[in-house]
Amino acid sequence: MLELAVDELSRLPGIGRRTALRLALHLLREDRSTVEGLGQALVKMRNEIGYCRVCYNISDEEVCSICSDHKRDRSIICVVEDIRDVMAIEKTTQYRGLYHVLGGIISPMDGVGPKDLTIENLVDRIKTGEVSEVVFALAATIEGDTTNYYIFKKLKDFDLNVTTISRGVSVGDELEYADEITLGRSIITRVPYQNAMQGR
Amino acid sequence: MLELAVDELSRLPGIGRRTALRLALHLLREDRSTVEGLGQALVKMRNEIGYCRVCYNISDEEVCSICSDHKRDRSIICVVEDIRDVMAIEKTTQYRGLYHVLGGIISPMDGVGPKDLTIENLVDRIKTGEVSEVVFALAATIEGDTTNYYIFKKLKDFDLNVTTISRGVSVGDELEYADEITLGRSIITRVPYQNAMQGR
Repeated sequence: MLELAVDELSRLPGIGRRTALRLALHLLREDRSTVEGLGQALVKMRNEIGYCRVCYNISDEEVCSICSDHKRDRSIICVVEDIRDVMAIEKTTQYRGLYHVLGGIISPMDGVGPKDLTIENLVDRIKTGEVSEVVFALAATIEGDTTNYYIFKKLKDFDLNVTTISRGVSVGDELEYADEITLGRSIITRVPYQNAMQGR
Repeated sequence: MLELAVDELSRLPGIGRRTALRLALHLLREDRSTVEGLGQALVKMRNEIGYCRVCYNISDEEVCSICSDHKRDRSIICVVEDIRDVMAIEKTTQYRGLYHVLGGIISPMDGVGPKDLTIENLVDRIKTGEVSEVVFALAATIEGDTTNYYIFKKLKDFDLNVTTISRGVSVGDELEYADEITLGRSIITRVPYQNAMQGR
């Protein structure tokens, strides 16, 4: 019984068997209602949250609250790696456009290619003609740069400004660790992608 | 929905909000059955595992499998801080007696006094007259030493050998981090508690 709980916990990323055992023993000492609360919260989350069919943000509706918010600027799409980046940018309150969540980043080392990401869906969104600007907000890493460049080439025949968030953030840092002010500022001072490439 | 899951996960010891979010997003990408498996394993563990009424080891019966195993030497009781120590000692396969799980260690700093531990229950077990030796296997820390000494005084009027596991393990180390061979050896070469105190 304990063994099964430890097995299940140690399947979580970053949780080894020793940590899993420590967590299991902690839960054994908690009230039954607390443990049931945790179990139900996880199952409920998994069963009721899905992905927005437009931008692939998480959502409990077919279209997420950002995509269906008509006060937002529908002419601009910010491209991010995952949901945590949407959360980080929303927290700055500096961005009023839409998002596109790639669901990862091109990384041959990890076996992630363009087909594993929602890049084609992004291209389909651009084809509607509603969009005039795409802002890249991926991590400033080799994988991020590769992904930016791949998407940039895919979009080059559209009449579109392709920009990238400015970097006050030091190169090589993960986006989600940036403080809100720096990240907010880097959205306001975004620059044309080709200008940013010249700096290299 | 996501918020609730993150709240619940971040109540676990050593799991901050950022780690909780990472775990929640991981679970969102898993199959429903995987998440249900985890939730059910935790609830089932909490609901079906209790504590042995003799030694306070975890058990799904009223008396645990060690206490009810008549092949074990009932004349010797090994005193440990928690269940993980029972697991560590059992793994060495060097010990064939019974255990007594204190459920903690005397630590005035953390507000843990003798009354919070199962020390009186240990004394009751000794009173039955079945026991001829008590082996201390607590961590070699100030709290461990204090707890050993407190129990030693409680037991001084009984006709009893009080021993402590020998330390190949360096002083100040937690018991559960010792390797199996060192820990197994330290049980075999246990010494009378009073001898061990003379070494200080």
